[in-house]
Amino acid sequence: MSIVLGPFQYGKAETRLVRIRRDTPRHGITDLNVSIALQGDFAAAYLEGDQRTVLPTDTQKNTAYVWAKKMDPDPIEAYGLSLARHFVDDVEPVSGARIEIQRYDWTRVPVDGSDHDHTFVRSGQEVRTAAVTVEPSAFHVVQGFTDLIVLKSTGSHFKDFLVDGYTTLQPTDDRIMATSLTARWRLTDPAADVDWNAMYAGVKTVMLETYATLDSYALQQTLWHMARAAMEAYPAIAEMRLEAPNKHHFLVDFSRFDESNENEVFHADDRPYGLIHASAVRDDAAPAGAAWSAYTGLV
Amino acid sequence: MSIVLGPFQYGKAETRLVRIRRDTPRHGITDLNVSIALQGDFAAAYLEGDQRTVLPTDTQKNTAYVWAKKMDPDPIEAYGLSLARHFVDDVEPVSGARIEIQRYDWTRVPVDGSDHDHTFVRSGQEVRTAAVTVEPSAFHVVQGFTDLIVLKSTGSHFKDFLVDGYTTLQPTDDRIMATSLTARWRLTDPAADVDWNAMYAGVKTVMLETYATLDSYALQQTLWHMARAAMEAYPAIAEMRLEAPNKHHFLVDFSRFDESNENEVFHADDRPYGLIHASAVRDDAAPAGAAWSAYTGLV
Amino acid sequence: MSIVLGPFQYGKAETRLVRIRRDTPRHGITDLNVSIALQGDFAAAYLEGDQRTVLPTDTQKNTAYVWAKKMDPDPIEAYGLSLARHFVDDVEPVSGARIEIQRYDWTRVPVDGSDHDHTFVRSGQEVRTAAVTVEPSAFHVVQGFTDLIVLKSTGSHFKDFLVDGYTTLQPTDDRIMATSLTARWRLTDPAADVDWNAMYAGVKTVMLETYATLDSYALQQTLWHMARAAMEAYPAIAEMRLEAPNKHHFLVDFSRFDESNENEVFHADDRPYGLIHASAVRDDAAPAGAAWSAYTGLV
Amino acid sequence: MSIVLGPFQYGKAETRLVRIRRDTPRHGITDLNVSIALQGDFAAAYLEGDQRTVLPTDTQKNTAYVWAKKMDPDPIEAYGLSLARHFVDDVEPVSGARIEIQRYDWTRVPVDGSDHDHTFVRSGQEVRTAAVTVEPSAFHVVQGFTDLIVLKSTGSHFKDFLVDGYTTLQPTDDRIMATSLTARWRLTDPAADVDWNAMYAGVKTVMLETYATLDSYALQQTLWHMARAAMEAYPAIAEMRLEAPNKHHFLVDFSRFDESNENEVFHADDRPYGLIHASAVRDDAAPAGAAWSAYTGLV
Repeated sequence: MSIVLGPFQYGKAETRLVRIRRDTPRHGITDLNVSIALQGDFAAAYLEGDQRTVLPTDTQKNTAYVWAKKMDPDPIEAYGLSLARHFVDDVEPVSGARIEIQRYDWTRVPVDGSDHDHTFVRSGQEVRTAAVTVEPSAFHVVQGFTDLIVLKSTGSHFKDFLVDGYTTLQPTDDRIMATSLTARWRLTDPAADVDWNAMYAGVKTVMLETYATLDSYALQQTLWHMARAAMEAYPAIAEMRLEAPNKHHFLVDFSRFDESNENEVFHADDRPYGLIHASAVRDDAAPAGAAWSAYTGLV
Repeated sequence: MSIVLGPFQYGKAETRLVRIRRDTPRHGITDLNVSIALQGDFAAAYLEGDQRTVLPTDTQKNTAYVWAKKMDPDPIEAYGLSLARHFVDDVEPVSGARIEIQRYDWTRVPVDGSDHDHTFVRSGQEVRTAAVTVEPSAFHVVQGFTDLIVLKSTGSHFKDFLVDGYTTLQPTDDRIMATSLTARWRLTDPAADVDWNAMYAGVKTVMLETYATLDSYALQQTLWHMARAAMEAYPAIAEMRLEAPNKHHFLVDFSRFDESNENEVFHADDRPYGLIHASAVRDDAAPAGAAWSAYTGLV
Repeated sequence: MSIVLGPFQYGKAETRLVRIRRDTPRHGITDLNVSIALQGDFAAAYLEGDQRTVLPTDTQKNTAYVWAKKMDPDPIEAYGLSLARHFVDDVEPVSGARIEIQRYDWTRVPVDGSDHDHTFVRSGQEVRTAAVTVEPSAFHVVQGFTDLIVLKSTGSHFKDFLVDGYTTLQPTDDRIMATSLTARWRLTDPAADVDWNAMYAGVKTVMLETYATLDSYALQQTLWHMARAAMEAYPAIAEMRLEAPNKHHFLVDFSRFDESNENEVFHADDRPYGLIHASAVRDDAAPAGAAWSAYTGLV
Repeated sequence: MSIVLGPFQYGKAETRLVRIRRDTPRHGITDLNVSIALQGDFAAAYLEGDQRTVLPTDTQKNTAYVWAKKMDPDPIEAYGLSLARHFVDDVEPVSGARIEIQRYDWTRVPVDGSDHDHTFVRSGQEVRTAAVTVEPSAFHVVQGFTDLIVLKSTGSHFKDFLVDGYTTLQPTDDRIMATSLTARWRLTDPAADVDWNAMYAGVKTVMLETYATLDSYALQQTLWHMARAAMEAYPAIAEMRLEAPNKHHFLVDFSRFDESNENEVFHADDRPYGLIHASAVRDDAAPAGAAWSAYTGLV
């Protein structure tokens, strides 16, 4: 019996990179948080402190910056793939790479009814994410988002649940259902011509429409149908995973006051919250490999 | 020489209140974070622990909820004024009240090209704020926002500055200028018919247009002109205060690589940051009283 | 080819539970953040919104509170195991449970040289964590901590690393090495008489001593030796995983001023940071099962 | 009637500065977050974008670093005073300066029973703060701390309070009282020989002892007595201000379960919270000037 080195990886996390496109007076902006993790022949660095095969994380950061000049980092999925392949193909001890990216969206400031050429305001609520994994035998793109905060003020039931000796919750046919949605969807060995920005917008649209229109009997049910609808619309998606806190809105009890409260005034509570995990997968999906192995807590 | 009780106030902070309007199938939502501070005859509570004049903060919270039913809490300024006046007028030991409100905006989810009746997504980046102060002799409304993140990719200079023995910064005629803007503007004894939502939208528009179109020689100059333009457009505003971190975007040095970087690839730094305070005031403005005395760190 | 339901779980996250022991005037306090995830026969809730097998997350919360009365929640590992087994054993549709706990430590306030009976101050920097997983065939306890912030002002080298066309970092034989350490160690089917609090204190001591005394040639090497030393001291530990951001401290360049800087004045940077993952495992360790499958982002 | 420039200031916020003392093998560490604000003749920068009197914030940052070499930045109050005076005395357009500092404490790692020479762990919970203000006619030091989290499990009442139509709270003679205390105390024109570190430790000790031993009838009362006791012990303190959220711990209702709950199991709630402001002042205190005018949200 002995103690041996287990799985390891290292890299540079959270490089905050802003790329301006200024070929014309109408500038463009891509605003990213890039994290890089490398796998490979680095055991000697752990066991003996020998760095001869270790590409410094500082170099990885430099490379991320230069790569954002060599190519347009929009879409982030293509940028991430190119950057990951560089490390695997060009740096000898590297056998695998994972690039995790957060993208913050900006919109143009309107001036006298027209969008301004070079002035932007941070927009939207959700953060778009990508996690690209290049392995020796396959590569994966996990597209997704975090922090999409949605709320339905009706159209949500919760009833007929299991009751035990610790149950005090009352069933309801009309409640607020709100969440801050994290969604991620996997494509393994995707074709070179995937339109990543169109897929992102389309998946989000389908998910929001399903969320809005489905009569909900549980957040579990809502999540499953959102995932299924998105995958039906986008056959290239092999698998989708959703994580959703049930952001509880409690009806404030007005019974001791001279007022009624017909699902009108709520307390939005912070903690605790229900936390629901759901996933959908094609029954013929390629293996996921390390696609879901998070490096940072970011994506 | 003796030690005496100095200024004091107390209240309930950060009541997270969501109000749904559901008179028709097309629901409305107002999502607030409400903080209440009371001034008055509470010295005995501090000196001797005597609570006879102390309205519990729990009661204040209840009142905020009930008030959101008695009246529509949109606009937040009118709701805050009514709530503050209740405490001052109806609770005997209370001589002054301050209500600080954060408002989170939501937009309707589009479904098949139409906005949905009861499904919403959190929108925008800035948080709208209001601070209402009712004093015995005057009342003040400070309208504003925090966290409006804006960026110009050109049209910003910084040069001809003071140089001393610790100066290493190089002058520039083309840099990114970005900030997360906090703005607050004061109206003292405002008329009853102020259209608060229109004023809020209008001030934000004027400020963004000024930010976009002014050729900037300093963030200081930009802030001053934003404030002046807003106050010229809205004569009821007595005073405006701005606080803006200079969110530095550093051009990444590519000189050691085989690449150029013509203001294209930047590192968005976290800390330190320049922090600029600016204000504009009408020379005949009514006294500010306690209008600017923050209760929470929120507004 | 069809889309099918993938892995799922649900539960109540972040129940903030404080337990006071007050059998004598000398009170005790245990301050916890408890998250519960259940696995089992819940497919109908996802597919059809049928809740008949779903124990509401509200009930799970109630149970966590009652369990903290039925038994002392200190040590947290025993409390977590008992709570998990209750769900698996007593709630028919439940086949597996995971309990994740954060524990915040308090120390007694000293008064006239003695520790006070019932007044406490939050202490320490790290947050102790436990993740208990009960599966049909095994159970696992992952003990650990997050946010242990440590720094060595010398005794750390970084040199002889791989150089490519994007490398600008200079080697060094004397740098600050600092991190905010996350450590987790797994015991599978642990004996009933494990002294969890003693193990926690002991592992932390061994790790800190190794961190202090090892001449470091890389954070990778330091982490591996910390893990190995802890596992040598505690044979019951099957596996240990470490995650450590390299919190960079950059020597400030004084060359343009009339001052020297001999490793004395540093800029503590926020982002980016190196992020190192390391692990050690016994070569005869029992399978990990779902021990490492995080439910919340907490532990 | 015209719009004129109101009060302004600018500077560099949150420079994260770490100073190592390494004259002997037993190193010392001082870990700071330094913010600098300057007042003076900068109107042209606001009005016209003219920077000729503006010392760049980048230069201010450089100066903070160099000053930490010129002198030991411990105690932070003396360092802040020296740095502020440099700007006022040596930079011609500057007429006033404010330095706000957060200090993070570290303790030595014990190894084999002895404290290690150069290895440290971040300690304690509270953050020590200082705000130094140099004005033309006076200078002020505001010493203090934030985030000192304390809890009493008994010895706290709340009863006999004002009741109105919105009151539902029940009086109690035994509750948990907990807060995250912010305290600041002002010295105007302090003597050169103040022992700042001893004063800091002493004030904290007196405040904690008062918190522990006073039978509490309100957080208001507790805060006042803490402030008064500290000022009685330290006659140089002119004024003290406290801000304390009442971190509510709600007894969990076990009445529907087969368990009792005799002040043993609590829910620690996040929001809303009571928020109490208290202050004590000597009746012959020198005027406070700008001592309390915060620049950042930090101190």
